[in-house]
Amino acid sequence: MSPTPPTLQRITVLSGGMGGARFLQGLLHGLAGGQVPGGSEATEVTVVANTADDIWVHGLKVCPDLDTVMYTLGDGIDPGRGWGRREETWSVKTELAAYGVEPTWFGLGDRDVATHLVRTQMLAAGYPLSDVTTALCRRWLTPLGARLRLLPMTDDRVETHVAIADPDAPSGRRVVHFQEYWIRLRAEVPAETVVVVGLDTSTPAPGVLDAIAQADLVVLPPSNPVVSVGTILGVPGVRDAVAATDARVVGLSPIVGDGPVRGMARQMLESIGVEVSAGAVGRHYGARGPGSTGVLDAWLIDERDAAQLPALEAAGLRSRAVPLMMTDHDATARMAAAAVEAAFAGTAS
Amino acid sequence: MSPTPPTLQRITVLSGGMGGARFLQGLLHGLAGGQVPGGSEATEVTVVANTADDIWVHGLKVCPDLDTVMYTLGDGIDPGRGWGRREETWSVKTELAAYGVEPTWFGLGDRDVATHLVRTQMLAAGYPLSDVTTALCRRWLTPLGARLRLLPMTDDRVETHVAIADPDAPSGRRVVHFQEYWIRLRAEVPAETVVVVGLDTSTPAPGVLDAIAQADLVVLPPSNPVVSVGTILGVPGVRDAVAATDARVVGLSPIVGDGPVRGMARQMLESIGVEVSAGAVGRHYGARGPGSTGVLDAWLIDERDAAQLPALEAAGLRSRAVPLMMTDHDATARMAAAAVEAAFAGTAS
Repeated sequence: MSPTPPTLQRITVLSGGMGGARFLQGLLHGLAGGQVPGGSEATEVTVVANTADDIWVHGLKVCPDLDTVMYTLGDGIDPGRGWGRREETWSVKTELAAYGVEPTWFGLGDRDVATHLVRTQMLAAGYPLSDVTTALCRRWLTPLGARLRLLPMTDDRVETHVAIADPDAPSGRRVVHFQEYWIRLRAEVPAETVVVVGLDTSTPAPGVLDAIAQADLVVLPPSNPVVSVGTILGVPGVRDAVAATDARVVGLSPIVGDGPVRGMARQMLESIGVEVSAGAVGRHYGARGPGSTGVLDAWLIDERDAAQLPALEAAGLRSRAVPLMMTDHDATARMAAAAVEAAFAGTAS
Repeated sequence: MSPTPPTLQRITVLSGGMGGARFLQGLLHGLAGGQVPGGSEATEVTVVANTADDIWVHGLKVCPDLDTVMYTLGDGIDPGRGWGRREETWSVKTELAAYGVEPTWFGLGDRDVATHLVRTQMLAAGYPLSDVTTALCRRWLTPLGARLRLLPMTDDRVETHVAIADPDAPSGRRVVHFQEYWIRLRAEVPAETVVVVGLDTSTPAPGVLDAIAQADLVVLPPSNPVVSVGTILGVPGVRDAVAATDARVVGLSPIVGDGPVRGMARQMLESIGVEVSAGAVGRHYGARGPGSTGVLDAWLIDERDAAQLPALEAAGLRSRAVPLMMTDHDATARMAAAAVEAAFAGTAS
């Protein structure tokens, strides 16, 4: 039996888009319902969201992960697609295509455009992205109470580009924006390299390092380990903050069984030479400890992958196999509860 | 009986929004149908449109008169409203209001937003407004044939502001953008002064002066004489070009009977001390001639205002009273035909 975790005053989640947003829904549901050990409605949740797949399109600054988290938690998301606004209309996109303006492959809904217009205008007026995000969240997250905050990982421009083979190019390869790779090319061609432009020189947005340092628990939700959580950890200072925090750090595998649950984890992992398995992702994150660059105290994999537990334990990573499918809020809340239990296993209550 | 006008190779129209656009529809209809003396489908029509009521709103560059002309002639206008796109949706506007972002009074339709996005992005990329307008017109005007061109009066930023009484302001007055005066305040308060910021230092867009100099006929359609035609004539060089052209110059009164046919002509005329009548507007434009700053060879007023003809003739302005209500394309084509006849009255055929 696991020891009782301490009262959770602050949880910080390093989130990508869809996977992270759905995990957060379940976490909030579990906190409100008393399903998360040590947690309650009073637990403060800070989301540090990936901004490395942001894109400028038609002159608008689009932040897919920030918006997916914001819309999902604020009940504005289209639940079928998992991105963009519910009851969306597509007049702007239709008209841009009628003008023959590229790109035509980006899913720019009319309701969504309003968010991008507000963001773009505030950025043009000189506000940093973190302030803009706070302003946008006033609409979406205020109804959920003051305990929830959404922060971009950085206020700096960071953009993920993917190198793919292109026999027609003189160099034999071509570099495309991550969104083009993901949406237009559907991640169907191998990614030779992933280059995150601007990451090395970026600085964490205000509040990010404090949110990691002052948390009781830091969660790496089942987001893409390369282009979502990986880029957040790649902002200079963030990985060190995770290594140094007094909080427990727990991750949940986005890989279940033989393939990715969603997203293009396969291509991204292969591009950095990491095997596509729950165990390999856990070992890629690594166990925290003196002299280690690892970030995890505990790692959750799906029960179907239980055979990978011994190798994880051998690598020094406390791991558990539990159901990891976010089929509904209750199932996801149980994942959050299991993550808390795993994180605090072996501690005095 | 009027003498036959010469073959009309080129007609240049100095246009505002709705009134000018409807006149142009009738003119093109009349040219295509052989109703305009001397004109034919081969007649080249150049529209020089007012840009002084342009506005930046939500970070988008909106050019109401250019768009009204473009949408009207390209059959994209909402015929009921007379502005904006047909089959419009309003998701962006609804969402901006949900974010609490001002202004909420501006009618920003979703389809319309696409036009503004293309324009704004091209302007940001360094293209002048005239190039942007040409690019947008490729979609709207190309089906009408190469004989039709739409030019902004200038590529420079020019903005009309209106001073109104405001007892709460220390100075006792407040200055609002023309669009705010017209849309939000519905032109229901007196305009103390109209200030067209940037007009004095603007230069005509490429092609504007040539279009006036090389025309056979220049038309001042029934647009607002102050904030539409007046601002076009106010671009340095334009009034001189109209005075110097070998073309005949004819105007059609926007004032019929006791009040304006549309728009806020009354308030605008009163703000510059001109009586609100067809005759007064004609005398305000003035008769061309040596030593005169007038711009007209002929002036059309509505038949209901025929009593004003003697005063116009006394002022040296050749005038005619004809039906001036643009009830349908045929009626408007007859106005265009009457304008041509009046312009070339007294010339050898």
